[in-house]
Amino acid sequence: MAGYADRLAEAIKTKQSRLCVGLDPSLKGLPLAVADRYRQGQEPDATVEAFRAFCMDVVDAVEDLVPAVKPQVAFFEQYGPKGFEAFAEVCGYARSKGLLVIADIKRSDIGSTCEAYASGWLGEAPLLNGSQHEWVEVDAITVNPYFGRDGLEPFFELAEELDRGVYVLAKTSNPSWIEIQGLSLPSMTNVARHVLELIAGWGKGLMGERGYSSIGAVVPATHPEEATEMRAVAPATPFLIPGVGAQGAAMADVAAYFDSQGQGALVNVSRGVLRVFEPDDVEWQEKVREAARKYRDELNTVLDVAGKLGEGSGA
Amino acid sequence: MAGYADRLAEAIKTKQSRLCVGLDPSLKGLPLAVADRYRQGQEPDATVEAFRAFCMDVVDAVEDLVPAVKPQVAFFEQYGPKGFEAFAEVCGYARSKGLLVIADIKRSDIGSTCEAYASGWLGEAPLLNGSQHEWVEVDAITVNPYFGRDGLEPFFELAEELDRGVYVLAKTSNPSWIEIQGLSLPSMTNVARHVLELIAGWGKGLMGERGYSSIGAVVPATHPEEATEMRAVAPATPFLIPGVGAQGAAMADVAAYFDSQGQGALVNVSRGVLRVFEPDDVEWQEKVREAARKYRDELNTVLDVAGKLGEGSGA
Repeated sequence: MAGYADRLAEAIKTKQSRLCVGLDPSLKGLPLAVADRYRQGQEPDATVEAFRAFCMDVVDAVEDLVPAVKPQVAFFEQYGPKGFEAFAEVCGYARSKGLLVIADIKRSDIGSTCEAYASGWLGEAPLLNGSQHEWVEVDAITVNPYFGRDGLEPFFELAEELDRGVYVLAKTSNPSWIEIQGLSLPSMTNVARHVLELIAGWGKGLMGERGYSSIGAVVPATHPEEATEMRAVAPATPFLIPGVGAQGAAMADVAAYFDSQGQGALVNVSRGVLRVFEPDDVEWQEKVREAARKYRDELNTVLDVAGKLGEGSGA
Repeated sequence: MAGYADRLAEAIKTKQSRLCVGLDPSLKGLPLAVADRYRQGQEPDATVEAFRAFCMDVVDAVEDLVPAVKPQVAFFEQYGPKGFEAFAEVCGYARSKGLLVIADIKRSDIGSTCEAYASGWLGEAPLLNGSQHEWVEVDAITVNPYFGRDGLEPFFELAEELDRGVYVLAKTSNPSWIEIQGLSLPSMTNVARHVLELIAGWGKGLMGERGYSSIGAVVPATHPEEATEMRAVAPATPFLIPGVGAQGAAMADVAAYFDSQGQGALVNVSRGVLRVFEPDDVEWQEKVREAARKYRDELNTVLDVAGKLGEGSGA
């Protein structure tokens, strides 16, 4: 299997799409067509099953339109063991459809604790009988950088060994990013920019064959004025970009994150694709599909206008 | 039920102990007496059951010696749904013994995602049928501050509503803390110190009746020269202090984190209590108990010498 960076580049080229759909199931975002199928069931299984079914239906609706999906573990984790079961099923289903799965988990810790997270999310956990157990299979995860490198090293090591990817938070799309990530440093930069430089450095150990590392960075669509500089700071770092849609940024804001071949980034949209129908709309899957198509095409148009979808870019 | 801060202060006084035992089960740390009971079972259940049994046996060994235990979710999470089931059982068992349970989860995210984490770990998750589901019950959690306040607000809100506690990472005990937390700011402070100031500010909304907030901070035993200053920066913030034992710090290093009544902090020891026996030692529980007693007494002696266990301190 090729490294994550190369698989991602190939998927972007094949699908002619840089859109990632976030799988964020919630009660108020469930179509009645799904909710009613489970409403009479035993709880909490019924709710979890409805979330699972909804996510799988979304995967069916968008599978040919996107290279990747990003299931958010928190929405499953809140139901405990049953939620985790459903999360693993959603991840497996998306992978069976040929999609890259980026598990949005934002974990991090140090030492043997971090090794356990890495085993659980990227590899296999050790068993008493000497064998290993894998409860979920994903292509990449998101992680939090606050500990510094030794809070991430076990993720990087398993990513290298098992051809997985790791997206490290650099700058987030929420208003409070300014409180810590936005602190000014004497070097005329800020914490987020400094973290991005660290990520770019860490990524040098996991370079693929197409110019990108399997260690990526989460950067926001909500600060377009910085995109060119962030791309320059981390030229080989694949970006995962939230913030378009419900969080207020437009597709036009993200062009500078992409390279001249339309590679180097995925734009994630969650609510902008999932929350596009009334609960009683029986054609909700078509609405989701249309929304994904619209975002995919809009992004490609933005990149084309910017001269980033030339010959050989695959789009 | 009293707020977390007051329940903690009461437990410290009643138990005359400021020690928290970390529940970090691992294959190489399992006594054979436990492992052999499960070795023939179906996997992964067998391993997870052994972890659960080990943690419960540790709880039995230390329950009268400590006010709190800190189960680490990563060691359970690596086994997926079965691991989560066992984690919830361990938490419930420790609480049934009157111990405060600090779930070491280090979560954080923004918006509805953070709300889902908060529901799952501090409250109840919403169900299709209009009721709620609680899969685990804990007294406090650890969280990561990188997003800033809006990546923590849902935790604070539920902590206030449901009398739970939240420990926010300020400065961690690993060598790489310096990479991000150690960045110097123009104000002659660094990121970790600034984060601690933020935490102290956030905590003002959740003050208990005994001078401490239910929003605490994780600060390390490994930098004793800073303890006095960190206590001054955050006078009403309860500290959770890792780093003693396997990570190299000594009990003598933590006195400055405590107030004049021996309150305001818990010192966590994991490996120093759990890894004190050979695998084939049938008296392993006694060894664990002795180690916990030694750390408890050593800490009390350090505080007594520092004049922090005077009349009315309860020790």
